[in-house]
This record gives sequence, structure tokens and C-alpha cells, in this order.
Amino acid sequence: MTSFRYELVVTCGRARLGRVETAHGAFDTPAFMPVGTAATVKTMTPEAVAGTGAQMILSNTYHLMLRPGAERIERLGGLHHFMNWPGPILTDSGGFQVMSLAKLRKLDETGVTFQSHIDGSRHHLTPERSVDIQRMLGADITMTFDECPPFSADKAAVAHSTRLSMRWAERSRTAFSERPGYALFGINQGGVHQDLRLESVNTLTSIGFDGYAVGGLAVGEGQEVMFNVLDFTTTALPEDKPRYLMGVGKPADIMGAVLRGIDMFDCVLPSRSGRTGQAFTRRGQVNLRNARHKDDPRPLDGDCPCPTCRNYGRAYLHHLVIAKEILGLTLLTWHNLHYYQELMAGIRKAIAEGTLETFAQAFGQQQAAGDIEAL
Amino acid sequence: MTSFRYELVVTCGRARLGRVETAHGAFDTPAFMPVGTAATVKTMTPEAVAGTGAQMILSNTYHLMLRPGAERIERLGGLHHFMNWPGPILTDSGGFQVMSLAKLRKLDETGVTFQSHIDGSRHHLTPERSVDIQRMLGADITMTFDECPPFSADKAAVAHSTRLSMRWAERSRTAFSERPGYALFGINQGGVHQDLRLESVNTLTSIGFDGYAVGGLAVGEGQEVMFNVLDFTTTALPEDKPRYLMGVGKPADIMGAVLRGIDMFDCVLPSRSGRTGQAFTRRGQVNLRNARHKDDPRPLDGDCPCPTCRNYGRAYLHHLVIAKEILGLTLLTWHNLHYYQELMAGIRKAIAEGTLETFAQAFGQQQAAGDIEAL
Repeated sequence: MTSFRYELVVTCGRARLGRVETAHGAFDTPAFMPVGTAATVKTMTPEAVAGTGAQMILSNTYHLMLRPGAERIERLGGLHHFMNWPGPILTDSGGFQVMSLAKLRKLDETGVTFQSHIDGSRHHLTPERSVDIQRMLGADITMTFDECPPFSADKAAVAHSTRLSMRWAERSRTAFSERPGYALFGINQGGVHQDLRLESVNTLTSIGFDGYAVGGLAVGEGQEVMFNVLDFTTTALPEDKPRYLMGVGKPADIMGAVLRGIDMFDCVLPSRSGRTGQAFTRRGQVNLRNARHKDDPRPLDGDCPCPTCRNYGRAYLHHLVIAKEILGLTLLTWHNLHYYQELMAGIRKAIAEGTLETFAQAFGQQQAAGDIEAL
Repeated sequence: MTSFRYELVVTCGRARLGRVETAHGAFDTPAFMPVGTAATVKTMTPEAVAGTGAQMILSNTYHLMLRPGAERIERLGGLHHFMNWPGPILTDSGGFQVMSLAKLRKLDETGVTFQSHIDGSRHHLTPERSVDIQRMLGADITMTFDECPPFSADKAAVAHSTRLSMRWAERSRTAFSERPGYALFGINQGGVHQDLRLESVNTLTSIGFDGYAVGGLAVGEGQEVMFNVLDFTTTALPEDKPRYLMGVGKPADIMGAVLRGIDMFDCVLPSRSGRTGQAFTRRGQVNLRNARHKDDPRPLDGDCPCPTCRNYGRAYLHHLVIAKEILGLTLLTWHNLHYYQELMAGIRKAIAEGTLETFAQAFGQQQAAGDIEAL
């Protein structure tokens, strides 16, 4: 079994080409992780997910602890075996989902007590329990348990929350049992406030983690503010550890975050959008529900090598979406995940060749054109 | 382009091993056709359907004429291209679906006027229109337009309906344009009445078709009555043409019908059951919603070579079904279609080897055992 290891291969401006080795294999950065919330990347087989170019996926402590249960997954041989995904898995700590999904939350210094959104059962999630659940799942990368204040919180509330999350990060570190190839990432918080973000960076780096995530963004602050936070946060993070921007985002968000030194991303957008008839393309987003696709024999993108674009026309995709056929959800998710991975591969190639700025400009112009008809 | 051709390879009792050549390739009989109602075998890619061993699929005139429209599919290059299924396709004539799905039906000698169950639009379906729609779709095997009386109809009503269907069969024959590799099948009717079934056989054979279907069964009469109808109907059908039992059925129905000389089958059961958490196995049906699967790491059937059984345990399938994850629908449909194709392959092998009776006995005993735990 390999050690967990991050290699920074080359930089281009602040963007970084790298490679991460884990207990279940390596992945190249900048990387996008498809989201497998409930031990499945919705609508997709693991083989299809891997076929899009994804080397790694994310799954969720909150969802899996409630159903089917972390102890059960451990007894069944761990998450990799359970869901038939042999590659690296990162698990979210559950902090964000407790805040956004659970009922009757009660927060104190020890952790969060809440009721399941599925069956109303009561649970107590603490840094120690979250880390232990992630160990039972077999996560290659475990995330520290944190609290995510709402975007509307005032600075005093954000400061209070951030310092609680930092104490929880330290408890997560203590609770995490070192195993070769398995890593623990700390999560930076601090809202949009530079002093709080930097205080959080200092606390985390003094504790010491295998990687650093930027959390609490993409919650309504807008792209400009998010990029601004990244500007002063990533520059303070250690060079020799991977950096992960949680829950982001649209293709343009990812592009901008890579330019600001981020290495890892996850987002439900490509899969969730696929299930609502939306496709991501080089020319922006396309709504397959739109009647203009009814008689269009062309693929979504004639240059896209994904199975959806190779085998089906827009008229067929439109038909499937309108007829509420499950294959439509699968084919659009497939294309979207493929598009995201192609974007990441293009970004990595451009960093390697030192041409990321040109790549980013061309990307921005094509996206802004928004003209799917011209594809 | 090949001619449409049926070769009777060998018989075993009344069971027949054969091969049918069509414009889009050949298929071996006895054959089971997965149902692709709305130009998709629900939850499955065409590649996955072919991977189960299916050589041919069925699609529906009624559904496709309403959405996306037959003229549209013709403009888009035909159904094979539209849905990316390069193999043979048989299309139902719409008669059965009009009776079971459409609203405000009005039947007269010309055909049926009805309202779409989707948008209430009015349509007039006649033998000529049905055959023309199937030509536009590009069906390798076109079915004559018929009327299906309800199981509750008295003999006079069945006689009236059967004779109308026979007049429509003749009009379908006249309307069908001969093209190499494309075939027209007549549909035998007559309910459970021997004299009406034989009258229908005589009418159809005197018109002359490329194959003969037995329609109007599996509508509530029960397996024993159905087998009885087959006993006196198939013996009257020509030896040198394929015989198709429409809409059938459970594995045991298929087994019994093969023993009575049927060559082709279609049924929504394996795919529809998959979408409700039901799996077909050598030991009978299994309900994956049942809590006893929660902690069971074993595959559905350790001897089944399908991707579902090779890659996933019952506990995972149970989890997907309970969590209403789309992948669960896909994996169970996949297994069920695979099981049906394995059954057909086993039947064909047993006919070739002259051991079908032994095969059928072992099949019946295993199914009756119903003990999935013993798998």
C-alpha cells in the first residue's frame, strides 16, 4: 500500500499541476470529483463514471450514516467494495449536510444533535464520530468535521463559528488514526473575512493536515467575492499540500479557482443538471427541454467524444427528457461528467505547457458566446 | 440487404430451434424481445441491452406516433438510428395500446378514433395508417393492426371482433409495401374459443404472412387456459413461418409456450419488475425491498454472469432500491433482462441437443423451490 503523497509537478502562474497518491490509487490535479452522495453517482454505473475520465469520487458521511449506516458498510467490506468503485474516495464530514438537510439541529461544543431527514431518528455527530464513520467507510481522504455558518451570518457569528470549527479540526486530527495511504484534510473557514480566513489557515497549518480545503464558499456570495477570498486564502496555504475548494462549481468557477491555486473540486452541478435536462458544453449551458431541439439530428457537441454525443442526436435527447425516460437522465449526466473531466484534462495540459492563460481566455470567450447552435 | 427468411433448424417435440434473418441482422429463436416502448428499453443503454444477449427489441406504434411522432422519426433517419439500436426491431401495431391506454375510443370498420393519453390530441388509427407508421419507423417486422376484445367479452363479441381484426389483417397486407428484409406478421385472435382461433388461422394463412402472432392472450385467462389455446392454435399454424406469442410472459409461461411451438416472445415484465425492486432468478422471484437483504453481501445469484451479479451484493441492491436511486432500477433491469436471455439460450441449447423435456423439468423444479437463499 502506497503512502498518501502529493507531488507538485509544475506551476503556471498560481495554477498547479500535481498528482496525489492514495491507498486506492492516484489522481491528477486539478481534479474534479463527481458526487456519489448515497454510494452512487446518480444514474451512472461506476464503470461509466470512470469512463468519463474521473479518477476519484466524493461520497457523504451524513447520507451514509443514516442509510445504510456506516457500521453496515464496514461489515460489508467498506464503501469501495459496497459500491464497486475501486479508485480513491473522499468523504465529506457531514457538517455541511447536517446544516442544510437535517431537522431540529442543536449545536454545542461537543457537536451537533439532529433528526434524520429520512426517518426522524436522532443522531449526535461529533468530530470524533465523523472521523470514525469515515474510517468505517474506508475513505481515502477524510474531512474534518466543521460548522458552516449561513451566508447571512454577521462577522461576530462567523468568527464564533470558525473558531468552533478550528477546535473541531484539532479534535478530528486527534481522532484520526494514521494508516498508510489514508489522509485527513483540514477545512478552512472564515466567511468572506480576510482576517478570519488567515487566522483559520494559521490554526490549521499549526495543527498540520495532509491537505487543506476551503469551505463555506459558493453559498450565495457570488463569484467575484469567492475569487477574492481565494486570492488571499490560497496564497497563505502551504505549497506542498493539495488544496480543495468544496462544493464548487460551474465551469467558470472552476477555471477561476484553478487560476488562484486550487487543486481539487466537487460539485453536484453536472449530475444534478443532467437530471433536469441541462447540458454543459464548450458554448455554455443547453436546456434539452427546449422545443428547438425537437428535429435537430446533431449531437450536443460534434467534437465531444462522450458516448452521448457519439451515439445520439439532440432530437433523441429532447424526446427522452420530455418523455421522462430514465435513459435521458443517464445520457445527460454522462455527457456533463465527461465535459467536466475534459475541462480538467484541458486545464492540466495547459498548465503543463505553460499556456493556461490563453486556455482560460479561449474558455471564457466560448462560454460567453453561449451559442450552442454554432457547435 | 438480406431477404427476410425463417429457417427451422431442428425440432424437439413441438419446440422449434430456428433463425430469422431481417434487414438489420439475424436472431435465433426461441427469442425474447425486450420492450423499448418509447424508443428506449427503460433505464438501459442499447449497448447494455445487447450485452444481455438480446438480438432484437420491440417498440410501440402507439407511443411513438404520439411522441415524438412517426414522421419526425422518419425524418431523423428511422428508429434504429434515432435510438442507436442497430439490430432488428419489431413494432407493435398499436391496436392493443389504443385499447388499454387511449381515452375516448371510438371503433368502426375503418379503424379507431381516440384521444392521446399524453395530451388529449385526437388521432385516427387504421390498418393502413398503422402499417405506414411502422414503415416510417423502419420496423424490420411490422404487425397487422388488430382489435383486442377484453377478456370479459362474450363469445359473440369475440367472434365479431376477431372477424373485424381479420378484415383489418387483409387491409394491412394490402397496405404493406414489400421491401427486402422487411416482414409483415399477421395476428391470430379468437379469445379462448377453438373454432374462432382456427377460423382466424385459416383466414390469416389464406392471406399469407411472413410470420404469425398469437394475440389476445395473457389478458387474465390464466396459464392453463393460455396453454390450452396454444395447443390447438400452434398445431394449425404453418411450420415454415415464425410464431410469436404477444406480451408473454413470466419465465414459466415462456417455457410452456416454447414446448407448444412458439418462437418469439415480448414482455415488459423483466424491465417493469426491475423498476419495482423485483428480480427474476433460477429460484424464482426475489423482492429486493425486503429487509432480509440489508446485510447480505452475496450477489443475487452467484452463478449469474450479468454485471449486476458480478459487481454488486444484495445489500447494495437493497440500499439502492430503498434509497430510490436510479442505479438500482438499472441494475435490476439489467439482471432481469440477462436472466431472460440466459433462459432463452438454455432453451435453444436444449432443443439443439434434444433434451428440452429434461431442461423444462429441472427449470420447473428450481422455480417451484423459490428459495433464493439457496442460490
